[in-house]
Amino acid sequence: MHQGSKNPESVGLGIDLGGTKIAGALFDSEGMVSPKKVLYLENKTGHEVGEQIFMLIESFLDWASKNSMQINTLGVAVPGIHYLKTGRVWAPNIPGWDDFPLLEELNDKLENMDISIDSDRACYILGETWKGSAIGCKHVIFLAVGTGIGAGILIDGQILRGADDIAGAIGWWALTDPFIPAYKKHGCFEYHASGPGITRTAKDIKAHDSEFSKDADQLAAEQMMPNDIFKALKEGNPLAKKVIDQSIRFWGKASANLVSLFNPEKIIFGGGVFGPAVQFLDEIYLEAKKWAQPVSIDKVKFEPSKLGSDAGLYGAGFLSLKSNKI
Amino acid sequence: MHQGSKNPESVGLGIDLGGTKIAGALFDSEGMVSPKKVLYLENKTGHEVGEQIFMLIESFLDWASKNSMQINTLGVAVPGIHYLKTGRVWAPNIPGWDDFPLLEELNDKLENMDISIDSDRACYILGETWKGSAIGCKHVIFLAVGTGIGAGILIDGQILRGADDIAGAIGWWALTDPFIPAYKKHGCFEYHASGPGITRTAKDIKAHDSEFSKDADQLAAEQMMPNDIFKALKEGNPLAKKVIDQSIRFWGKASANLVSLFNPEKIIFGGGVFGPAVQFLDEIYLEAKKWAQPVSIDKVKFEPSKLGSDAGLYGAGFLSLKSNKI
Repeated sequence: MHQGSKNPESVGLGIDLGGTKIAGALFDSEGMVSPKKVLYLENKTGHEVGEQIFMLIESFLDWASKNSMQINTLGVAVPGIHYLKTGRVWAPNIPGWDDFPLLEELNDKLENMDISIDSDRACYILGETWKGSAIGCKHVIFLAVGTGIGAGILIDGQILRGADDIAGAIGWWALTDPFIPAYKKHGCFEYHASGPGITRTAKDIKAHDSEFSKDADQLAAEQMMPNDIFKALKEGNPLAKKVIDQSIRFWGKASANLVSLFNPEKIIFGGGVFGPAVQFLDEIYLEAKKWAQPVSIDKVKFEPSKLGSDAGLYGAGFLSLKSNKI
Repeated sequence: MHQGSKNPESVGLGIDLGGTKIAGALFDSEGMVSPKKVLYLENKTGHEVGEQIFMLIESFLDWASKNSMQINTLGVAVPGIHYLKTGRVWAPNIPGWDDFPLLEELNDKLENMDISIDSDRACYILGETWKGSAIGCKHVIFLAVGTGIGAGILIDGQILRGADDIAGAIGWWALTDPFIPAYKKHGCFEYHASGPGITRTAKDIKAHDSEFSKDADQLAAEQMMPNDIFKALKEGNPLAKKVIDQSIRFWGKASANLVSLFNPEKIIFGGGVFGPAVQFLDEIYLEAKKWAQPVSIDKVKFEPSKLGSDAGLYGAGFLSLKSNKI
């Protein structure tokens, strides 16, 4: 060990790529050691998105050198599937990223940088385990409910990946009857209980439930975003109550199924909807308790994400430090 | 290595404890090397069952010495939960085994025997991976449907155990609406689609579906065991068709959920019901394909158990060899 020398401090760079923006920050084993920076994608596609990522990385390389830090390792969270064997990425919300060679592009531009990539859902649970609600847990699940629904799952300290790195796609879970063709696009659970699913539920009820369809006091069609519904619920709106009750049933049943199957220590609720829907965690637990394996449900805890929208970024930071070979 | 000497061949003893009988056999790395022996429990309880296990072990020690084999290692499959840290067992179908100190009892009687215990569902998938339908698989699930429903799950070659060794209890999976109080005892999936669940479904339909309740040609109440229903289906009985169609929907949805979540290479169908219900595997796959994550369902294979009722015994044999420290 060289102590007291002018050697720059070695840090990892975490990058969280979303469908609309890229966030980045520097990390050491204590946590975030730089300001967080965000670049918006502004409808960029394919290799342009790769360029944006590289632009963000360069700004951090610059920032680090000015602050006596050195970045040799990079962790990237991607919104979709990362194929571990090839380093290629499928990100359904980024046009041109149905088979994007992310690792290759990064390696081409960043010599001597040790790079790790993982899916956003894997990064959420890594982030929460490292610095959030799941510290010390080895069997824990991050249930991400936003535009889509997915689960990041830690089993005995290891990320569940599946045979082809597609594990955790529980937006496709079958939780009710009967099958309707619209499930083919979203999956049953996601159709009903994602952010857009809440809006769909409200519109479905308004259109087909005679109790609500004729009532002029009910929510207008343009007031059916999840936050509108949450607000209307607080004001006592009965349609909002019916919508949220149904969402709670779906979240409760899915949580119950995770508990019966995995016997986890905790389920962490995150994503854009949790967020505001964490106010319903007690009701979700009560719904889950009706259905779940009775011993496992008594042992599990349901908790909100502590890192919120930074969970993926912290996970990417953790990835970058794990890959640290210095 | 001493070759050509008279040293006895070292083998492992596998014991598969069920709710009504105990099966045992000797194993080496090639497979079973002795006849299989079975002892019936005949309503024995608590420590008497421990005595029966010991009696079976003694008969194998005797058989081994007569056949120039030596048993130093033992693997036991138990019908319930094995708590790894304590060696205690919860087996709901054996009276007096709600917290049975199996490892302690065996250790007391068997000096110098290296003992491994695991749950039946863990042993099923270990057995199939070793000598059955899942050879070479690292991500594979054994869906056991019999008196109860459970899953033995292998993830990257490791058994899924959960925080308290209770993982895999998917008989409790919530797969339909609404919740009914009877689910509290069995779990929703098990209520509808276990062996007794098939009988329950037939009785429910006969009692409440006007199409069937008044038809004198329909199945009598005493003809509603699963095998009766399978037989009636072959004879074109419409009630049997309705019952099995509903069972296929539940099996299909549960399989779909396993596929979306785990992205496994295979699901192996076993237990007393699969068995005869393997004739429906193609229909179960078609039902699963409606609901599941589309990439994962195209990659997975649904296969019958190759070891059948010996899956747990082979798993116990595999356990015994894994623990082999010779």
